[in-house]
Amino acid sequence: MSTSEPAPTPTGAAPQSSPGQGRGEPVRPAFDRSGLVPAVVQDEASGDVLMVAWMDAPAYRATCTTGLATFYSRSRQEQWVKGATSGNYLRVREVRLDCDRDTVLVRVDPDGPACHTGARSCFDDGLVPVEPSGAGQSR
Amino acid sequence: MSTSEPAPTPTGAAPQSSPGQGRGEPVRPAFDRSGLVPAVVQDEASGDVLMVAWMDAPAYRATCTTGLATFYSRSRQEQWVKGATSGNYLRVREVRLDCDRDTVLVRVDPDGPACHTGARSCFDDGLVPVEPSGAGQSR
Repeated sequence: MSTSEPAPTPTGAAPQSSPGQGRGEPVRPAFDRSGLVPAVVQDEASGDVLMVAWMDAPAYRATCTTGLATFYSRSRQEQWVKGATSGNYLRVREVRLDCDRDTVLVRVDPDGPACHTGARSCFDDGLVPVEPSGAGQSR
Repeated sequence: MSTSEPAPTPTGAAPQSSPGQGRGEPVRPAFDRSGLVPAVVQDEASGDVLMVAWMDAPAYRATCTTGLATFYSRSRQEQWVKGATSGNYLRVREVRLDCDRDTVLVRVDPDGPACHTGARSCFDDGLVPVEPSGAGQSR
């Protein structure tokens, strides 16, 4: 999670290269004070961002070890395997942590629509009209 | 932000189709109790997820109106325009909200590396070794 820039590269802090390669236990994210990290789910084939949800430590571990994307419901206060009810599992192809280790990127092969509305992605119907003043359009 | 499944489609709640098309003010996300929403930044050309950061209302509005991705630093408690110091601006091509309107997806054309480490993406060096037990590999 980028919080400012430019930030000095931490020395001896969060790993900047493949963290924890070769360990038996999956590399642990930097969970927030609530014990959670946001997890971005991306379709490996299309590159589309499908959804964003939260993971606690057990959900993260389950995602890394079962091959099925698993999250933590803040409202129900429990883990949930995406697809357990709908059948639309998200099959884990790759897990990445960001440079601060406080965000998870899960690249998946989805069995079906990722959104509870039936849409392929939770972002499919959310286009926001933007009217840049011009600064963003020129290079 | 998906919090459970299956969730009934809300009636008269968060819009399920293009929210606020045609309004003068950008559609407002559902900010959390801290007044923030997570924002996922995706490279429009490559589809790569570049970084995840936070937005408050002014940062979101700036992102939608200036065409330059703008975030909120929780540590410094202020907005920051990505690239203002490094020159590596993220030029906004598209803004989307998810089905619950509590996550922003910003598709951008980046002027340079998105990560403060100099990496193209904050996730470039964060591959986590996963050893699915098999459930995720079969269909």
